[in-house]
This record gives sequence, structure tokens and C-alpha cells, in this order.
Amino acid sequence: ASPAANDPMWGYFTAIAGQDGEVDADELQRCLTQSGFSGNYTPFSLDTCRIMIAMLDRDYTGKMGFNEFKELFAALNGWKQNFMMFDHDRSGTVEPHEMNQAINAMGYRVSPNALNIIIKRYSKGGRICFDDYVACCVKLRSLTDHFKRRDTMQQGTATFQYDDFIQCAMSI
Amino acid sequence: ASPAANDPMWGYFTAIAGQDGEVDADELQRCLTQSGFSGNYTPFSLDTCRIMIAMLDRDYTGKMGFNEFKELFAALNGWKQNFMMFDHDRSGTVEPHEMNQAINAMGYRVSPNALNIIIKRYSKGGRICFDDYVACCVKLRSLTDHFKRRDTMQQGTATFQYDDFIQCAMSI
Repeated sequence: ASPAANDPMWGYFTAIAGQDGEVDADELQRCLTQSGFSGNYTPFSLDTCRIMIAMLDRDYTGKMGFNEFKELFAALNGWKQNFMMFDHDRSGTVEPHEMNQAINAMGYRVSPNALNIIIKRYSKGGRICFDDYVACCVKLRSLTDHFKRRDTMQQGTATFQYDDFIQCAMSI
Repeated sequence: ASPAANDPMWGYFTAIAGQDGEVDADELQRCLTQSGFSGNYTPFSLDTCRIMIAMLDRDYTGKMGFNEFKELFAALNGWKQNFMMFDHDRSGTVEPHEMNQAINAMGYRVSPNALNIIIKRYSKGGRICFDDYVACCVKLRSLTDHFKRRDTMQQGTATFQYDDFIQCAMSI
């Protein structure tokens, strides 16, 4: 038996993954919708599911294995709790100034300019819905990981070759 | 009269822009849908409209003035012609290997790895539709512009501060 066979999530994963044993964006969207993960919030768009996979897809196959699947669920649960903490009026959206607090609470330090850019990009009608909030979290995490891996001196500065820059920023 | 008043697109722009005299993502989506720009292709998603604006939004207001509006239409016309050239079977989608040719035809030089990442990110069911194709073009153009502005020695290498990197990559 696979070492994962004792894991309570293994059966769930294999049912979703189907024949190829990996989860792609369509399968992930279906699973997150059917499991009711988003609750009363709008379900995740296919686009957000694609970047969730890209965030963890270290071998660039466009699919997730079991370990990545578990890692994603851990991240999603954290982001959902974080979102609910700031969605004070239970409207399913957060306001721009709450987005500011949420990003700080996740440990990212960005300038007011960067915050403004993020809010412009992810808000609709002046508010940020759960799907866009998670898309934003995925991108922030992924970009920060890419950056840190190249900021070897931990000076807050990283040098990129053009092709490497395109790979980092186009993947998500 | 405004110097733009003699421009045939000026009346069109002011009608779309409304009271504030600028075009936001909702207005842009409505205008591109109503004008039939996408023809038989699927209309542009709001997400793609948001990054179209972000590409040209140098003052980070989330809106476009008249000059940016004209610049966007010029770019869109180019991308549409390019797309139609590669959509040989008039299916409204291009295949991954056609995407390769299209990106080369636009003058971008990216590695097979980067191409693979781009195709994974922008394809649905193994094909790339017009909306995602344009989203990909917007991001490639925007990221390449950001990179070149920082690659002052034109050596194909650029150094970013963390916050600057986040601003470049999160805006689109």
C-alpha cells in the first residue's frame, strides 16, 4: 500500500484525481465547489484554480500530486479564516482598508503604493470578494517565494534574467 | 475645444467614459462587448479588462484617459490580427504549438520552459481562447516593459527591490 493510504484525505484525493492520479484545474474547481469549501461565498473561478495549482506545481505539469493537494488545503483554510476575520459584516466581501489589514496579518510588508495597486487589481465595485482575495493571496505567496529564493543575501533585492522573470510572473 | 475633439474616436471615448472622463474596467468591458470587437469569439472577461487598463495605467488610478484608450485599441487590433492568423480552423481557439508561433511573431524570445508555463497557465482543455490569449499578450507586454525599464545596461538582467517586484507583477 502507498504510504499515504492511512491518511484520511487519501481516499478523497484519489476520487478527485481519477485515472492519472493527479489533480488538474478542472478537477480542483469541481472538488472545491462540491465540497462546499466556499460556503456562502462565490465559488472559485477556473482562473483562480489554475493559479492555485501553478503555485505548487514545481514540475510544471499543470497538475497536483497528493502532497501538493494537502499543502493547498492547508493554505486555503488559513486564507479562509483570515478572510472571515476581516469580513465583519458577513457580506462575503472585504473593503480595501480591510485588505490592507489582511495582507499585514499574513506577514507581508508592502508599501502603500503596492497596496493601492493590489486593491485596484482585485476589487470589483470597491470591494474584494473571496475568489479574488484568494487569487491575490496565491499570487503574493508565489511571487514572494520566487523572490526570496533569488534574494540569497536576504537584502530585499533580487536579480532576474529576463526568461526567469517571465517564468515567475507569467506562471500565476 | 480639446485638441482631441477632431479625432474620430473622441466622441466614442467620451460616450463610454461618462461623467468622470475616464474609462474603468466595467466601462471597457461593456464597450468591447457592445462594439462587437470580439466578433465570434467569447467576449472579454472583466479580469482581462482590468489588466488591459493596468497595462497602460501609469498613474495607478484604475482608469484610462483618451490617449491610453487609443493605445489600447491599437494593441488589441494587433493581437486580434495575430490571433486570427494562427486560428487556422476558425475555431476561436489556438493550439499550444500555434501559441508558440504567435509569441515569436510578436517578437518575444522565451525559452521552451517559459512557453510551457505560459501554455499551462492560459489553456483550457488543451486550447487557448481569444480572451486568455489577449490576457497573455497584455501580461507579456507589461512584464517585458517593466523588465526593460530596469535592464538599463540591456544585458537581459534586471535587479528588483521586493516592493518594486510586487508592484510590477501584482498589477497585472
